[in-house]
This record gives sequence, structure tokens and C-alpha cells, in this order.
Amino acid sequence: MAQKPGIPKGTRDFSPIEVAKRQYIIATIKHHFETFGFQPIETPSFENYDTLMGKYGEEGDRLIFKILNSGDYLAKANETLLVNKDSVKLTSQISEKALRYDLTVPFARYVVQHQNDIEFPFRRYQIQPVWRADRPQKGRFREFYQCDADVVGSTSLWQEVELVQLYDGVFSSLGLAGVTIKINNRKVLSGIAEVIGAKDKLIDFTVALDKLDKVGEDGVKKEMLEKGITEDAIAKVQPLFNFTGSINEKLEKLSQLLASSEEGMKGVEELRFICDNVITVGLNKSVLDLDVTLARGLNYYTGAIFEVTAPEGVAMGSIGGGGRYDDLTGIFGLKNMSGVGISFGLDRIYLVLEDLGLFPDTVTEATKALFINFGDTEALYSMKAIKKLRDMGCKVELYPDTAKIGKQFQHADKRGIPYVVLTGAEEMNNNKFTLKNLATGEQTAVSLDELIEQLNK
Amino acid sequence: MAQKPGIPKGTRDFSPIEVAKRQYIIATIKHHFETFGFQPIETPSFENYDTLMGKYGEEGDRLIFKILNSGDYLAKANETLLVNKDSVKLTSQISEKALRYDLTVPFARYVVQHQNDIEFPFRRYQIQPVWRADRPQKGRFREFYQCDADVVGSTSLWQEVELVQLYDGVFSSLGLAGVTIKINNRKVLSGIAEVIGAKDKLIDFTVALDKLDKVGEDGVKKEMLEKGITEDAIAKVQPLFNFTGSINEKLEKLSQLLASSEEGMKGVEELRFICDNVITVGLNKSVLDLDVTLARGLNYYTGAIFEVTAPEGVAMGSIGGGGRYDDLTGIFGLKNMSGVGISFGLDRIYLVLEDLGLFPDTVTEATKALFINFGDTEALYSMKAIKKLRDMGCKVELYPDTAKIGKQFQHADKRGIPYVVLTGAEEMNNNKFTLKNLATGEQTAVSLDELIEQLNK
Repeated sequence: MAQKPGIPKGTRDFSPIEVAKRQYIIATIKHHFETFGFQPIETPSFENYDTLMGKYGEEGDRLIFKILNSGDYLAKANETLLVNKDSVKLTSQISEKALRYDLTVPFARYVVQHQNDIEFPFRRYQIQPVWRADRPQKGRFREFYQCDADVVGSTSLWQEVELVQLYDGVFSSLGLAGVTIKINNRKVLSGIAEVIGAKDKLIDFTVALDKLDKVGEDGVKKEMLEKGITEDAIAKVQPLFNFTGSINEKLEKLSQLLASSEEGMKGVEELRFICDNVITVGLNKSVLDLDVTLARGLNYYTGAIFEVTAPEGVAMGSIGGGGRYDDLTGIFGLKNMSGVGISFGLDRIYLVLEDLGLFPDTVTEATKALFINFGDTEALYSMKAIKKLRDMGCKVELYPDTAKIGKQFQHADKRGIPYVVLTGAEEMNNNKFTLKNLATGEQTAVSLDELIEQLNK
Repeated sequence: MAQKPGIPKGTRDFSPIEVAKRQYIIATIKHHFETFGFQPIETPSFENYDTLMGKYGEEGDRLIFKILNSGDYLAKANETLLVNKDSVKLTSQISEKALRYDLTVPFARYVVQHQNDIEFPFRRYQIQPVWRADRPQKGRFREFYQCDADVVGSTSLWQEVELVQLYDGVFSSLGLAGVTIKINNRKVLSGIAEVIGAKDKLIDFTVALDKLDKVGEDGVKKEMLEKGITEDAIAKVQPLFNFTGSINEKLEKLSQLLASSEEGMKGVEELRFICDNVITVGLNKSVLDLDVTLARGLNYYTGAIFEVTAPEGVAMGSIGGGGRYDDLTGIFGLKNMSGVGISFGLDRIYLVLEDLGLFPDTVTEATKALFINFGDTEALYSMKAIKKLRDMGCKVELYPDTAKIGKQFQHADKRGIPYVVLTGAEEMNNNKFTLKNLATGEQTAVSLDELIEQLNK
């Protein structure tokens, strides 16, 4: 009995139109990565088990796809574990490889492994799929692409300035106006924690503060109190409850608020350098904003934090994010290698562009003309023209079979091919081609040169 | 203790230069695929276990990488299998997904699954990695790309004609002159088997015949006799031992030889159609040749068989292959779907181009100019020019730190960046930039417009 075809849950097939649209986004991102001097690397789809395990927390370890060893993988497995069906402990005995979970850990491993061949500061980009055994849901997949750009080997804040410009460059090229590039700084968050005297409550604090728009000042304060943040602490950061105005005004408020925290003031200074220079050089279609509630990947980042949100009116979470990390490669034995990077969320950007109708028509334009097949003699006559057209980069096809003409026209129509070319006895006698525009019905007899000119338009 | 970084055996990291070279080959292949009307699809990296298993023979089944189920994967495993350490039988109980082994089976699965959305004949291309647990050796990896183009839904031989042209188009664009596109036909092979009266000895026969150049006629015949092919049978196909001349002459010899085999004569007729039309339309830089010893994928193909070999003098096996198959999708429940396709061997093509020095210099050309960083004021002045240059697609960088000028120059040199731009107090006062060509040492003061013009050359 034939198998019913299907694919694993959380994975996707991509049709030609979907691939074309994804490639359009990826090509745009790559173009900007390269104008900023980022260079591509690629790492293997699977890494050694030990390279990945323990890098993403307990939850991450569970979500990593492990690859079963080849051959008689049970031969050396511990019998007690087998009898006890101890799945967790057995894993490392029957699996020595795992699919990559993100591009960051493989990048850190790459930098350390190839450090003698790399000229630092090293600007790399990497656009490859990653895999996570997450519960699939709308917009969350078990296989998806990450598009990352990172610089390692310099602490210069000019790189943060450039990464904001890079976001702006990509989204502007994609026609996505009004994207907000939010910036914050891990040191500012530490400063706030210092001021409220509750380092362990920082996440509770920012999560609550983030709801200001929705639940109002009283609602936020209520939640903070419930989480054990004292009234006294809340009073100390009162300005954060009215944290509006220009970036400069916000920076001014932060300076006053964090005056007593050395680390906090360092963060304010960094933010000021980045924002000043970004504003002076200018952005194309994006907006820069300072958001003190921004706290992504708190354990990971040490300086600037970025997050990009889609234009207002599009219900979509973040479409990009990143930040500065001071010790990414330490785990693999290379200390003091500061890095800063950003990531683009391909799937979400796709949905936003689809939503706003921003994919140019040319993206999905495939074959330009279908040559109707009237028989082998005519097909050979067509094929000579087709070869010339293709050599010039024009996308043309011969209908492979001598089918009824109606069927061949229908094929062009269903494929969205705009022109058909007819080559019967008359055309062959006159050394001509009949070119028909399927949208207008217009039909003209043209020479080969005219045909090439028309189809190369 | 820090982990020593490494990657699984048989896998590879690709450096920026390697990625650029691979991308150049892939872009060339894609370009030609698209001018021939092939459209891209992508399928998931892993398929359901049952989709892949049993499709590649016993050896193939062993070489497929299986993914361990997530969670408590041993919970439902059979206790007896665990106690007996029965690796083979346990696999299907603890793994329900596997990494794709080639692009052909996933393509067949795709066609059947999406048959209602596909307009046939369907020309698809697919360029994605595949994984095999083969013993790694020189030129053989556990993760490698396949680049496939197939048409399904038509038996027209014009497609075979086009696939030969497609090979020629790609290799000519890559500057690889003198590639031999070998063609044969499964039906001709069947005819030979019929004539020698030994269907089961066909592979032994072709393998022996293939050694004609090396061991001579007597050597080949000796091997055939050893394999149990009778003297009488060998006598019947004597013309194959002197199988030289033009394609037409070879076809003539085959017609005489296979006159008694209906299937064999059908194969000759097909070969004649394909070769005649290919020759009439013409090839750019490749050579078409008829090779009756060509027998790749014997069980799989039903009509034309292709194989491409690198130009003489380059020691490299086949750099591409393919053929006609009459029932690819039957296993998934869709009958009578004839297909024909070809594949490009990315890794080997890479080695050939490297060997012959055929990668254009532009392929690995990255950043065009490095702006020397003399301090934040100068950097800001530079950054304004850098933004303009990047917006115009020019690849330029600011050295992120205010390091010693010698170090910054050295960075440009090590990275192969051809120009540096100097912006000190004098340049800023005069609204100029000093552009220095690192190869010639030439140094000129230019305006922003002149800088843009120079670097966009």
C-alpha cells in the first residue's frame, strides 16, 4: 500500500512562490550585511553533543534535537539505564551529535577554533536554519532560519551605531517604513536594580513596567508590590512612570535617576554616544527609540540591547533583536572577546511584508514566455530561438509535448506566464515568431531580434 | 575547564572565502535553472522516518541519520529490545524523524502531497544540504549540498535535449570548457543484455567494458569470461569493442547490433532524437558523447542516462549526472508520473574550478575601502560619507577603534581591502577625503562625490 505523504509537525514545505519571497528578503539582508563589511560563514547543521548541551539552560537542552549514533548504538550503552528506561541519562550514550539550536554558539565555537586564521575585529554574518523541538504553534516552527550579523574583537560603540543603521538599511530597502528600533542598555537596567535595591527583582520590575500603556501607573505599581518590590523602591524610580519625550529628554531623566549608580551612569553614557551619532548621521525610514523596559536575553547581554518592532498597526511581535555581549567565547577557552550582534526574524518579516502587500511583483515573476509546441519541426525552430534568449538571461520555455493548443495556453495561464510565442509553418517560412500578450490578447509577428528585444524588456 | 572546540567528523566549517566561492557556483547554477523555467522549492531537513526508510536499499537505510525522539523517548520502547540491545529494531521505536538523504525522495513526496496545487509538467529545482553517515574520506562528506533540477509530468524527449543544454549553459558560464556530457539510455543497456542473453550480467558487462582503455580488448574479454559471460555472447557484441567515431556512427553500430531487440531499438531511437537536436541547436563549450558503458543508477532510470566529466587533464570523477525515471512517485501513491532530472556536484565542481584557477577575482572581493579611525570627531565625519556609500551599494567600513594607524593599515592589508580613506583635521577643514590605493601607494585628496565615483568603479 502506498504511504500517505506528510512531513513532521512544525516543519514546512516551501512552494516556488514562497521560496522566491523568502529569497527576496534574504538577498536584501545579505546585500546590506555586505555593504557593512560583514562576511558570510557557514557551520555544519549538527555539532558535537557537548558543544551545544548546557549552553541554553535546562529548557534549551530539552529542546535540542539529538541525532542517534549510527551502527550498533546500544552496544556500549549502560544496561542499568536501559532496564530503568532512563531516557535522560541514556541520551549522551547513544547520541554524540545534535542539530544546531541557534547560530550564536556555533559562531563562538567557530571563532575559537579558527582564531589563528581570523583577522579581528571579525564581522561575520550567517544565514542558516536552526532546529528546536518546541511545541509548534502559529508562527513558531521546529525548523526556521536565523539571519545573524555579529562583530567580535572590539568594544567600540561605533559598531552599535552601525548596527542601528544596518537595521534601518534593510527595513528601508524592504519598503517597510516606520519600523521602531528600540534600544536599551544592560548597565542601565543594572543601575535601576541598584537604585531600587533589588537586583533579583529586576525582571519582575521591567515586566511590570512594560504594561504601563495597558494597565496604567496604578496597575503597574500594584503588580510591583505584589512581586515584593517595596513602595520605597518604586518611589525612587518614579520618573520611569512618565518616561516620555525625546531620546535626549529620556537620557536626561535617566542621568538624574541613576546618578548614584556608577554602572547605571556608564550605561547612560553609552546610550548617549550611540543615539547622538545615529541621529546625527540619520536614518532612512526607521525610528530610533529608547525603551528602558527592553530587557531581552538579560543573562546574556552586557551592554546595548536592541529590539525592532513592526510599524504601528501590524500585530506582530519583534522582527529583530540583538545586543552586546562581553564574553561569548569564554566557554570555549577564548577570553576577553567582546562582541555585538543583531538578528533578523525571517518568518515574521515575511508575514509583515505579506500583510502590507510589500513584496514587489517582480519577486515572483518566473518564466516570461512559453513557446507553443506544434510538433518536432516547429519545436526545433523554437528551440534555436529559446537557446539565444536563455543565453541572454531571458526565462523562456518550450511546452514539452505537442498537446492541444488550448491545453498549452491554459498551462501558460495557470503558471502566470505573460507571453506565448507561436511558431507554425507560416512563421517558419517568414523567419518570424508570433508573440502574443496573454493579458491584452495583442498579437504581433516579430523577427528574432525583435522577439529578444520584447522579452528582455 | 573550557571545551576544546571541534566539529563532527565528515562535516565542515566554511570560511568567508569558501562561502563566496560556493555561492558563486550556486548562483550560476540557479541562474541557468531559472532561464530554463525551473522553479525553486524547499523541503524540511528532516522527513518522517517512514518517508525515507526503504527507499535507498539496505545500505542506504543504515546511512540515514535518525533523530532521537524528544522527551521520555524510552517510555514506550519494548523492554525485550532494550535488554537484548537490539539497536536495529529499537530504532523505529525511539526515532520518528530522519535527516534527508537526497533531494529526490523528498521531491517525490512533495509532488504527491501537493499534486492538486501543482501545474504539470512541473519543473522544479532544489539546492539544499543532504546528510549521509558514510565513512568520511577525501571529497566525501557527511553533510553536502545537492543541486537538482527535474521535470515531472511529461515523457517528451525535448526535456532531455534541454537538460544537455542546461549542463552546457552552467559549465560554459563557469568558464569550464571541454566538459564531456556523456549520454546513454537504459533501454540500450537492456537491449545489450537481451542480445548477450544475460540480463543478470549487465552490470558485470558494463563494468568490464568500461576498462577497455586501460586493459585493452583482451583484458576486458578475460574479465567478462571470468564473470560468466559466454564467448558466444561476447562475440555478438563485438562492435562494442571498437566503439569509436562520431555519435552518428555509434548510433549506426548500435542499430545493427540491437536490431533483434525491440527495447534496444527504442533506446537507439530516443538517443538519436536527443543527440540530433542537441547537435543542431548547438552547445557552447561542452562536448556531447555517447557512452554505452554509462550505467549509473541502473535500477532507477528507465530512459536517458547522463553523466558529466571534467575536462581532460583534471583528475576528478563525474561532476554531474541524471536521467529519466518512469515511476518516482508511485511509492507515495501517484502512478504514471514520468520524470527526468539532472544533478550538479557542487563540491567537485568547486575543486575543479580551484584546480584550474577559474574563480573570477571579483568573487572573493569583499570590502572596498577601510576608513581609518582618528577619533570620534573624525569617525563621525567618515560615518556620514560611509552611509552615503553604503546606500549606493558600496562595501565600506570604519575601523571601529582609534588604534595606531599602522595597526589599522595592517588590518586593511590582511583583509585584502584595496583602499583606505584618511580623514584628519585637514581633510575635514577642506571637506575632502584622502583616498589611498594600497597596491600602488598612490594617494589623492578627493571630494565626497569623487570618492563615491572612485569607489563605485
